[in-house]
Amino acid sequence: MQLSAISHRPDSEDAFLYDKDHLRIRLHTAKNDIAKVTVFYNDPYMFMPDKEGKYIFHYHIKKMHLISKGQVHDHWGVTLTAKYHRIQYLFEIQDTSGRKIFLTDRGFRTACKEGLNKTQNYYRLPYFHEIDMVKTPEWVKGTVWYQIFPERFSNGNKSNDRPNVKDWDPQTHPGREDFYGGDLQGVINHLDDLRELGVNGLYFCPIFKASSNHKYDTIDYKEVDPDFGDKGLFRQLVQEAHKRGMKVMLDAVFNHIGVNSPQWHDVIKNGSKSKYADWFHINYFPVEPYHDPTKGQGEPPYDTFAWEPHMPKWNTANVEVQNYLLDIASYWIKQFDIDAWRLDVAPEVDHNFWRLFRSKVDSLKKDFYIVGEIWHSAQSWLDGDQFSSTMNYPFTQQIEDHFLLGTKTSHQMVELLSDQLMLYRAQTNQVMLNTLDSHDTPRILTMANGDKKLVYQTIAFTFMQTGSPCIYYGTEMGMTGGPDPDCRKPMDWSHKGDEFWQKIAGLVKFRLQNARILGKGNTRMRVTEDGLIRIKRTESGQSILGYFNTTDKPVSCKMKAVLSQNFANDILEPHGFVIGYN
Amino acid sequence: MQLSAISHRPDSEDAFLYDKDHLRIRLHTAKNDIAKVTVFYNDPYMFMPDKEGKYIFHYHIKKMHLISKGQVHDHWGVTLTAKYHRIQYLFEIQDTSGRKIFLTDRGFRTACKEGLNKTQNYYRLPYFHEIDMVKTPEWVKGTVWYQIFPERFSNGNKSNDRPNVKDWDPQTHPGREDFYGGDLQGVINHLDDLRELGVNGLYFCPIFKASSNHKYDTIDYKEVDPDFGDKGLFRQLVQEAHKRGMKVMLDAVFNHIGVNSPQWHDVIKNGSKSKYADWFHINYFPVEPYHDPTKGQGEPPYDTFAWEPHMPKWNTANVEVQNYLLDIASYWIKQFDIDAWRLDVAPEVDHNFWRLFRSKVDSLKKDFYIVGEIWHSAQSWLDGDQFSSTMNYPFTQQIEDHFLLGTKTSHQMVELLSDQLMLYRAQTNQVMLNTLDSHDTPRILTMANGDKKLVYQTIAFTFMQTGSPCIYYGTEMGMTGGPDPDCRKPMDWSHKGDEFWQKIAGLVKFRLQNARILGKGNTRMRVTEDGLIRIKRTESGQSILGYFNTTDKPVSCKMKAVLSQNFANDILEPHGFVIGYN
Repeated sequence: MQLSAISHRPDSEDAFLYDKDHLRIRLHTAKNDIAKVTVFYNDPYMFMPDKEGKYIFHYHIKKMHLISKGQVHDHWGVTLTAKYHRIQYLFEIQDTSGRKIFLTDRGFRTACKEGLNKTQNYYRLPYFHEIDMVKTPEWVKGTVWYQIFPERFSNGNKSNDRPNVKDWDPQTHPGREDFYGGDLQGVINHLDDLRELGVNGLYFCPIFKASSNHKYDTIDYKEVDPDFGDKGLFRQLVQEAHKRGMKVMLDAVFNHIGVNSPQWHDVIKNGSKSKYADWFHINYFPVEPYHDPTKGQGEPPYDTFAWEPHMPKWNTANVEVQNYLLDIASYWIKQFDIDAWRLDVAPEVDHNFWRLFRSKVDSLKKDFYIVGEIWHSAQSWLDGDQFSSTMNYPFTQQIEDHFLLGTKTSHQMVELLSDQLMLYRAQTNQVMLNTLDSHDTPRILTMANGDKKLVYQTIAFTFMQTGSPCIYYGTEMGMTGGPDPDCRKPMDWSHKGDEFWQKIAGLVKFRLQNARILGKGNTRMRVTEDGLIRIKRTESGQSILGYFNTTDKPVSCKMKAVLSQNFANDILEPHGFVIGYN
Repeated sequence: MQLSAISHRPDSEDAFLYDKDHLRIRLHTAKNDIAKVTVFYNDPYMFMPDKEGKYIFHYHIKKMHLISKGQVHDHWGVTLTAKYHRIQYLFEIQDTSGRKIFLTDRGFRTACKEGLNKTQNYYRLPYFHEIDMVKTPEWVKGTVWYQIFPERFSNGNKSNDRPNVKDWDPQTHPGREDFYGGDLQGVINHLDDLRELGVNGLYFCPIFKASSNHKYDTIDYKEVDPDFGDKGLFRQLVQEAHKRGMKVMLDAVFNHIGVNSPQWHDVIKNGSKSKYADWFHINYFPVEPYHDPTKGQGEPPYDTFAWEPHMPKWNTANVEVQNYLLDIASYWIKQFDIDAWRLDVAPEVDHNFWRLFRSKVDSLKKDFYIVGEIWHSAQSWLDGDQFSSTMNYPFTQQIEDHFLLGTKTSHQMVELLSDQLMLYRAQTNQVMLNTLDSHDTPRILTMANGDKKLVYQTIAFTFMQTGSPCIYYGTEMGMTGGPDPDCRKPMDWSHKGDEFWQKIAGLVKFRLQNARILGKGNTRMRVTEDGLIRIKRTESGQSILGYFNTTDKPVSCKMKAVLSQNFANDILEPHGFVIGYN
């Protein structure tokens, strides 16, 4: 038995309340090493005399399920309940040769009856506190998101265009500084198109007053950028979206501000005497000119986002800055009724600030959704006191590596996806923002070398996963584009209703019609002997099953299809998939 | 290479700021499996052209140290720094056969130069935020605690005795309901004795108005129990303690209150109409009589501490209860200047409440110390937003198992202690309350079957450990006692200045004279070939070394002793130890 491979972390994603009465437990063991895991559990105060008068714990026993196989681990899970809302538990682990051992809160112990009566051997969830349970918004589990880069979605009002806007040519390759005239009126004009597509969550890149086309260099967090419209128009947009059953998410750029903001101007002008001097991370004065160490220019006078001189970093440990930003976070919720904040460069802002942020927004709107832009594993942000979820690149990039880029085998992908699902609690996985591409990555059709069948298969597979899927504007139109800024082309409206658009709309419809199973169901995923990727989602006894052929050979597959591609006469061709009820 | 045994958790006790500029990293591998671990690290934005113009990360390389060997793991550590306060890192792991692999944020990857240029491979501490750093009070690292059970320490004022107090006989076996008349005046009278012993932290079991002798069934949190004195006397006690350089810790019983409190009386009287009805966890009305399910009496009408009908559990999710308890926590700090709270039954109160508690006390007094009574592993309480430490039974009980009870070998003990030290950040380990016994356990001399040499050896070993040691009142007098209530005998003052008292005083003095090394130094611990337990503590290049003979044979040992027992002519006899500078 590979003891050193066995792990369990109490009061974490390995042992969490899924609802107020149920505790989910996970255990990890070396791959293919363990035959059986049993949990012994009881109330830590249910210490009662047995028939002979000897005091013993009145314990329960439950077998753990093998949930999945990761890169090097087997993952086990079980759900427990406790009448008096207190629980202690330990594991009996049995390997394939029949050898048994206890894993306890104090290490490995001989598996024996006496060990069950030692309090110190037990892990604890000392009391089921609903207030400590990680809560994620239910509505997100039934949402398909649509990401809009406002400057490139639709020009609904030419009167607010900059003088030098370029022609709205979807085939163009935008320059880094180009403007095309997209605006909020353009979004309003197309809300019914989006409703036809079926999406019910709109995720906007920044709309606040800023200098650039991407608006990540904020000037004024309380104004809509005049390129896009004004606050009245934004209020109308939210109302119109809500009327259509669509939620609205805005992008909060709270890691840094733009150099054209009044606060930064004051620092430039007044130096260390500026009342905003401590609002930033200043290394020395004067703050201009900026020095970029990667260009051999010496030490930077102030901290920025990356080495971007136009984006000085906020000092979010300063209470005035905290209050300033929390007021902004509140303003757009209270005045405009937004439903979600996406947090730009989230991990570079301190946890302390995000805890304040979470408390504030929770106090203002029930079931508010918070998505951190974090590209790496993010356990310490997802313990319930900060974000609801993150942009789930570490998950979706594994899908892309296999489906689109061919850099990982199906086995590798399934293993790594399985490992990713063990990083967070189930209710967190269910609201992760599963975005295959965005304004920060190449478009998936470009990653797929223009192969729409491959893209459809990839999106279908992603829609079968736990997590809230997100479509980047234009995907449904078959748009292409390389890395930023090429992925930010003006929207191509000419393909609405095309075959590919229909397919994407069909997927959205399927996902939302089956939101209970696909939003909250458990996941079982594996590669079949024929090389098909099999994924099954189950909730309350109902299941949806999917098979995906990413091999180069046809494979026989008997199933009643609800959605499919390259599937006929029980044969699933390469690039094919079939999804149906089970 | 046993890949499945290798683990690292980012932004946790495996990757934490030790001070504002230094990140400590830990990695765990299968025991004796890995020959070398190297960390590659860099600034995630220090992506610069190399000589050929190709963009690469400008990374640094550092070798990890083998810190210790646990039950089934080797533990590795290293300290890193980052000029621009941002870091990303990955591990290159090499086994004894020379095989290398990368451990990355997305699993295991082939060790190769290209892998170093992929952002996604790196773990992150995205920005060194001092505000997020886990901070523990420096003064605790130079404190030896002394725990006082007030009813049994000294009767300084007979006029406040209950009519039925028993004779102050230190040889007696106290009954569960007995009173002996100990009080605060008694403590004040003996402060100089405690100063002679050398302790500089007083930890009091509850002193607030309550019904029982142990005062865990609070009636009024804002009154000193009349058995013990009054608030004026307590203020005097704190002032006199502070004058002598002693800190004062009180016991906050915030999990439950006593049935004689006005709030509970109101619930009994008014049932569901009581304004306090939601202050408790009521299952049904009326709340009396109580039913104990372990006695087959059916379902309890309200939640209690364990099945103790006299201790109804607070509903700390209720905002009124939160404010009520936070006001009490503040009151004793603001009005009486206490230095620390020990939190009774801490893990059964919700995390949310403890976060509020931490914020509150931090706002009132700098470097305040908070100790949770948690008997199991406690990572989720020790992430910096709740407690400073816990009562470290899971650590000290391993010492007792080997030294006093003989149920673990020296190897097993060293392994399990090593594993325990990996559960928390270094600054947390340094302030853990290392108590060998308490009012809740048998006394150590009783565990040692009356063998004072064994007790002296055990305490000396504990004083060599990281963590703030605590002496239970009377240990220095050679007092004995079995489980509660026998461990709560009236203090035996007749042995002050005896040989054993002198030894304990000598240990206290040694610990405090070397507080920098013993309080903050790193720990290297192992069993020598001769079977001695070797422990070395090092801080800033200075070390203290100790050898402990727990075998039944004399072992040769060359060392200049500062403190020792059964040690002469370079021979360390059984029960012996030698401690000195290195």
